[in-house]
Amino acid sequence: MSVATGTVYGVGLGPGDPDLMSLRADRLIRGARHVAYFRKAGRPGRARTIVDGLLHAEAQEIPIDYPVTTEIPVDDPAYAECLAAFYARVAAHLADLAQSGHDVVVLCEGDPFFYGSFMHLHARLKGQVPVVTVPAITGMSAAWTASGTPITWGDDVLLVLTGTMDEEALAGHVARSDALVVMKVGRNLAKVRRALARAGKLDRAWLVECASLPEERVLPLAEAGEAAPYFSIVLVHGRGRRP
Amino acid sequence: MSVATGTVYGVGLGPGDPDLMSLRADRLIRGARHVAYFRKAGRPGRARTIVDGLLHAEAQEIPIDYPVTTEIPVDDPAYAECLAAFYARVAAHLADLAQSGHDVVVLCEGDPFFYGSFMHLHARLKGQVPVVTVPAITGMSAAWTASGTPITWGDDVLLVLTGTMDEEALAGHVARSDALVVMKVGRNLAKVRRALARAGKLDRAWLVECASLPEERVLPLAEAGEAAPYFSIVLVHGRGRRP
Repeated sequence: MSVATGTVYGVGLGPGDPDLMSLRADRLIRGARHVAYFRKAGRPGRARTIVDGLLHAEAQEIPIDYPVTTEIPVDDPAYAECLAAFYARVAAHLADLAQSGHDVVVLCEGDPFFYGSFMHLHARLKGQVPVVTVPAITGMSAAWTASGTPITWGDDVLLVLTGTMDEEALAGHVARSDALVVMKVGRNLAKVRRALARAGKLDRAWLVECASLPEERVLPLAEAGEAAPYFSIVLVHGRGRRP
Repeated sequence: MSVATGTVYGVGLGPGDPDLMSLRADRLIRGARHVAYFRKAGRPGRARTIVDGLLHAEAQEIPIDYPVTTEIPVDDPAYAECLAAFYARVAAHLADLAQSGHDVVVLCEGDPFFYGSFMHLHARLKGQVPVVTVPAITGMSAAWTASGTPITWGDDVLLVLTGTMDEEALAGHVARSDALVVMKVGRNLAKVRRALARAGKLDRAWLVECASLPEERVLPLAEAGEAAPYFSIVLVHGRGRRP
């Protein structure tokens, strides 16, 4: 007798407030018997924190500790090798579970296909076992909502950058955009601010920390300190056509 | 005796599948006694269709018919004048309701602060009556999820354009992006395809129609016909760092 293969669900949790999860995500998470999530070793994990109180009493938790975060620079080949081996190992474990007939929910902060770690599992699982991705509200949507001002009007061009880029590249891109979002600001805050100043847009830039969470904070980027939480987002609102 | 002022809620419905609404949106919509929504005159309205079966038995519906859609070109001053008067009239009506103590839910397709009509009401209501915006899953998140491939990896730059721009501008922007989303494709399909071909990216472009709905369709842009539904989205996936 063979067992039906299970499905691996990459479930987007949205920006952090559990009330902003989709109905589908909420249902999948509450019903799940196998729940996997990434975390920094030794930390509870932000994804796991979002679903506190929602998991089924019999849910088996599968924490996935990142082998490195900032100890090795991202452009060091050792970083890619280490992560490649890590993702292969995790994907093999989830594939085993699915092949034994278990559905597995992988908790994903934000939207899984938008700068998320889940995509590295998805790329390895696709074609091996059924994989379903559930989209979610992005952190940037929560950030511009928190700012109280729409991000794009009319035909505004929206540019999304990561704060991990070098300053020269950041400044060049910023100069050519209408509306702007910079993700992964955190320790790149000072560099992002310099890039915006060089492009003449610092006076229109906002820093949004922890959008949708109780500790949410919105302030002019020019007035920010030297550091910000990892999940901070910088915004410049578009100024397009508005009747 | 004075009545407490009501709140106008701009509630994002997400891409179309009601199961992808947030828990907060679902609760606000089911509880609402005054529900407003934009629609093209003579049509049921896409926003209203999404919440079919969810409204309270006593909900009072406030359909808002656009005075023009494509009859006047958007760059004609008459278009802006007509729409400005329209939004002012609608905002005054909703402000009246709130000042009489009623909460009003305005149904918004997609995410309200991302190319949505609600922002034109928000700009007029802010400071007059309490206004709360509920973010939602964007149509583009549903589109890249439907495509089965993540949109951004590593430090990919994501550019979001509208198909309403002219071909020259479109082609210039497209050439400078890693990952690309083109919104409002619809009747601009042929132009968008030419712009992508000029930028050498047509072979990597996908057309996603009606993402998250039963009629969802994903196909290579090169194989698309001459027209597409209004809510079609064109995607080019990023190819950034992936361990």
